[in-house]
Amino acid sequence: MQSLSSKLLEKAVEQFALLPGVGKKTALKYVLFMLKKKPEEVNSFLQSLQDLKNNIRECPQCHNISDNNLCEICSDPKRDNSVICVVESIKDIMAIEATSQYHGLYHILGGIISPMEGIGPADLHISSLLERAEKPEVKEIIFALSATIEGDTTGYYIYKKLKNKESLTITTIAKGISIGNDLEYTDELTLGRSILHRVSYTGN
Amino acid sequence: MQSLSSKLLEKAVEQFALLPGVGKKTALKYVLFMLKKKPEEVNSFLQSLQDLKNNIRECPQCHNISDNNLCEICSDPKRDNSVICVVESIKDIMAIEATSQYHGLYHILGGIISPMEGIGPADLHISSLLERAEKPEVKEIIFALSATIEGDTTGYYIYKKLKNKESLTITTIAKGISIGNDLEYTDELTLGRSILHRVSYTGN
Repeated sequence: MQSLSSKLLEKAVEQFALLPGVGKKTALKYVLFMLKKKPEEVNSFLQSLQDLKNNIRECPQCHNISDNNLCEICSDPKRDNSVICVVESIKDIMAIEATSQYHGLYHILGGIISPMEGIGPADLHISSLLERAEKPEVKEIIFALSATIEGDTTGYYIYKKLKNKESLTITTIAKGISIGNDLEYTDELTLGRSILHRVSYTGN
Repeated sequence: MQSLSSKLLEKAVEQFALLPGVGKKTALKYVLFMLKKKPEEVNSFLQSLQDLKNNIRECPQCHNISDNNLCEICSDPKRDNSVICVVESIKDIMAIEATSQYHGLYHILGGIISPMEGIGPADLHISSLLERAEKPEVKEIIFALSATIEGDTTGYYIYKKLKNKESLTITTIAKGISIGNDLEYTDELTLGRSILHRVSYTGN
């Protein structure tokens, strides 16, 4: 990267280049864009990030981010509080919410059991999940975890802690071939699981 | 885009999505990254942009950005002040500086003559260029403008204003096939120009 002939510019580019997937060239594009903006536009950019950082909280129930005490999902009376969907991170909540297919509550683990990265059960929000599962209204726990060894391990660890609770149904999201995918190009593991976990045909 | 279940988050994502080439999804990635950072890290990000915006100036000579009065290039005694390279924007200076092949000064026009976008000569830093060209030490003006109709028009407009000054050489950067490009895949216009503007063969 060439010298930018301005220390101020260089510093701002360095900071933007910290963003995930952003190199020096993209960072420079962003900074030059900001440089052309009116001061009040740059201020609202800065303010939005500052407000977020200063005022955002963690929902004490599901560990989602929240503007108030309980998050919007936990405090929504229209959501079905008998089902808890267990996910790794807030991104997974967003992905599931985007489907509009789920109307229950969530529980964010904040990660996944991974001996390789030194993440054990104690590092995750598992005990608070077990507490929530004790509530009489909770009837089902759905695991929506990655289809990886770590995801399976995490699910199995929590399953062992919960399986004695008779009133509780424990499920996991279906794993199979993606909608629109050619059978031919589906990997063997996925295809194998799809056959094992076949469901009755309803014509849809 | 799904609801983000937090107004603060939504606002920050909206602001990041204003950056060029950044959609809501990438903006969300950036914001979640910032959310995980320590407060002091976010502060240095914010501060760098604020400092840049508050303290950056325009070089009164070449219109480059500058931390002080004259920019780093104009104030560098090692640069050759007999040559001025005329460019459209600061990005072009960076591109040329990256080649390490040029050691003269620059002049940023701040755009290019474009009747389509309503940009005329009066909107560009042309009069200050003409003033600079009057200085006795200036011997050559190089046009490093886009190889487009607008670039050619802009160059020709300035050329007409300068051509009566006998002591001044006016040049333009070479246009031809790119290094490493196959002749076969070079467009006809470029190839045609390359033949017209052929140079004597030196074996390099």
